[in-house]
Amino acid sequence: MTVTAPKGFRASGVAAGLKAGGNLDVALVVNDGPDAGVAGVFTANRVKAAPVLWSQQVVKGGVVRVVVLNSGGANACTGSQGFRDTHATAEHTAAALRGRAKPLLIGAGDVAVCSTGLIGELLPMDKLLPGVTAAVKALDASGGERAAEAIMTTDTVAKNVHVVRDRWSVGGIAKGAGMLAPALATMLVVLTTDAVAGPEALDVALREATRLTFDRIDADGCMSTNDTVLLMASGASDVQPTQEELTAAVTEACADLARQLITDAEGATKHIAIEVLGAASEADAVEVGRTVARNNLVKTALFGNDPNWGRILAAVGTTTAAFAPDRIDVGINGVWVCRGGAAAEDRSKVDLSGRDVTIQVHLHEGEMDATIRTTDLSHAYVHENSAYST
Amino acid sequence: MTVTAPKGFRASGVAAGLKAGGNLDVALVVNDGPDAGVAGVFTANRVKAAPVLWSQQVVKGGVVRVVVLNSGGANACTGSQGFRDTHATAEHTAAALRGRAKPLLIGAGDVAVCSTGLIGELLPMDKLLPGVTAAVKALDASGGERAAEAIMTTDTVAKNVHVVRDRWSVGGIAKGAGMLAPALATMLVVLTTDAVAGPEALDVALREATRLTFDRIDADGCMSTNDTVLLMASGASDVQPTQEELTAAVTEACADLARQLITDAEGATKHIAIEVLGAASEADAVEVGRTVARNNLVKTALFGNDPNWGRILAAVGTTTAAFAPDRIDVGINGVWVCRGGAAAEDRSKVDLSGRDVTIQVHLHEGEMDATIRTTDLSHAYVHENSAYST
Repeated sequence: MTVTAPKGFRASGVAAGLKAGGNLDVALVVNDGPDAGVAGVFTANRVKAAPVLWSQQVVKGGVVRVVVLNSGGANACTGSQGFRDTHATAEHTAAALRGRAKPLLIGAGDVAVCSTGLIGELLPMDKLLPGVTAAVKALDASGGERAAEAIMTTDTVAKNVHVVRDRWSVGGIAKGAGMLAPALATMLVVLTTDAVAGPEALDVALREATRLTFDRIDADGCMSTNDTVLLMASGASDVQPTQEELTAAVTEACADLARQLITDAEGATKHIAIEVLGAASEADAVEVGRTVARNNLVKTALFGNDPNWGRILAAVGTTTAAFAPDRIDVGINGVWVCRGGAAAEDRSKVDLSGRDVTIQVHLHEGEMDATIRTTDLSHAYVHENSAYST
Repeated sequence: MTVTAPKGFRASGVAAGLKAGGNLDVALVVNDGPDAGVAGVFTANRVKAAPVLWSQQVVKGGVVRVVVLNSGGANACTGSQGFRDTHATAEHTAAALRGRAKPLLIGAGDVAVCSTGLIGELLPMDKLLPGVTAAVKALDASGGERAAEAIMTTDTVAKNVHVVRDRWSVGGIAKGAGMLAPALATMLVVLTTDAVAGPEALDVALREATRLTFDRIDADGCMSTNDTVLLMASGASDVQPTQEELTAAVTEACADLARQLITDAEGATKHIAIEVLGAASEADAVEVGRTVARNNLVKTALFGNDPNWGRILAAVGTTTAAFAPDRIDVGINGVWVCRGGAAAEDRSKVDLSGRDVTIQVHLHEGEMDATIRTTDLSHAYVHENSAYST
């Protein structure tokens, strides 16, 4: 049920002292091959953390054998020293793996690095590097779940996934209760597969999967400096799926992790699906869904169990999507409270007492649909993000 | 100190029963001339309330004698009946003014209409129209402050302004604690001047003034369906200021009202000025300031007295403005916690205990500056917007 479920992978999670409290905070995921293809998707934020700048370069070559991850510090906005620290972490990881009884003959260029935690502070390298050494020693074919635990920040549960096909599979781990947002969140995701697949096939599969999953969850509209999604293929199953089959399995794994992420978003009391129907284009559907998902007045209304459809229409009105104000329908949990841009069914019929909320916005402009998943804006969100520096 | 301070204007505010509790809820501002020039700026939201659609048409002609305003209902998302109600309100206002001992010989086309309150419900016309009749009877040369009171919704104080020049002046009233946002808020503003000024001069002055004032406050990033800013000139002073003088006075009045609006924004515990310095263009400066102002993680951090400059940089990174991540400086209340994109002065030196917060973001890309004013994201904001349907 995790990143080590596909054949050819080992993983580990150890406590290096980066997090106060002694929780696991350094993780490794190692691809033992025979293949070592990789694809990656990174934050669209123009302020990118050092490990993102590093991993983007490493992934460009199409080959990665190891991902080293840490929580307890994002290594973002840390200048040239931050980048040197990332480089040193990759070097140290490669050296430690070369030094084992079953050595991996790799260099720093085979190691992707991911970090998460507070922005603007240098990592405590005197703790991190010994942690990496310990993580190398702890590598195990059943270590995926400990790796998932080691990358948690404000997550309340570790996130794992395993999608099984005929003699091959896709596994994954994720963290990300923080700034879930557009074009990825503070989201670290490592996906593994034992399928036979080269970097190009992996890239096609990963981009399609993230477009339909991680790009459609949006907890608070804030975009992280560290978002990274990596997909590694070991080829250990000897099965080469078609591109379609690979893309479908990766998408299924990402969709599952995305649901886990949004369900565990900071302070959420509601899980909200915004289904945009009848849009003229997919881009319109996504824009409308995301705009409604980010509207603080919509989010606070839902926290208060108030089916305030007027705020939804006001949010739609700020988009560039094709629509006519007098043709929009809005449904909340199945009650069409607005038809043709005006009040329809009695809003008091809407039952918002449960955790799950479905909002339907029908634009009547075309055939395209998209669903954006988000959360409400609660006292707990304000508390978590005002009381703790993250 | 209000809309009736300039010569040639009368105003009133009455309780028509639209608001629960018997507070004033219908207001009139009448221009007795001799001139009747007008300019208007309206919400950029594509979902526009019926009174906005009406008033846009009326203002296009360049002449307006009366503004009738109500709180207790936005008349937005109310379909064709909503528009008929706005039309009927304008007709009723004109007829009531024609029927007075000192009649104003006007038609509905001389009457602008503004509404504010809950979206999606029809106005109770059986209360509104008698309210208009009463408001016509109550018109008085010192009625401006009652008009300001009658347009309050969740505002805690009425907003008035008076900017005095040599023998002429600009007065104004405003409401707007709600969805303060881009290109205006749920903001109703009526400005009056006894200067001699035609519709074109008024339009130039009003557009410049709103660009530099109302367009640069942003409480929660949500854009209203009803925003309206109107400027009427009576010419009663017989003084014709230059365009520059007129623009400067109108801008001063708008800046004062904008400060009053953001100070009274829902749930605010901090008044935050985001000064963007060294931008390549004014548009870049405004984009960066607005993006930081809307970032929920920045806003919650400031509510929690946390000088979390990393979140500010992460917000800047989502803009399209010209900047290099390793050249940005960030100051919080005078402490430059970030220089060249990395930690600089000790963040513990930042004192956030007061209500006023100044954030400086220096891009080092050019000579353009802009200041965006916003508020924090507090428990009180969540409470006000989840507990009450507005």
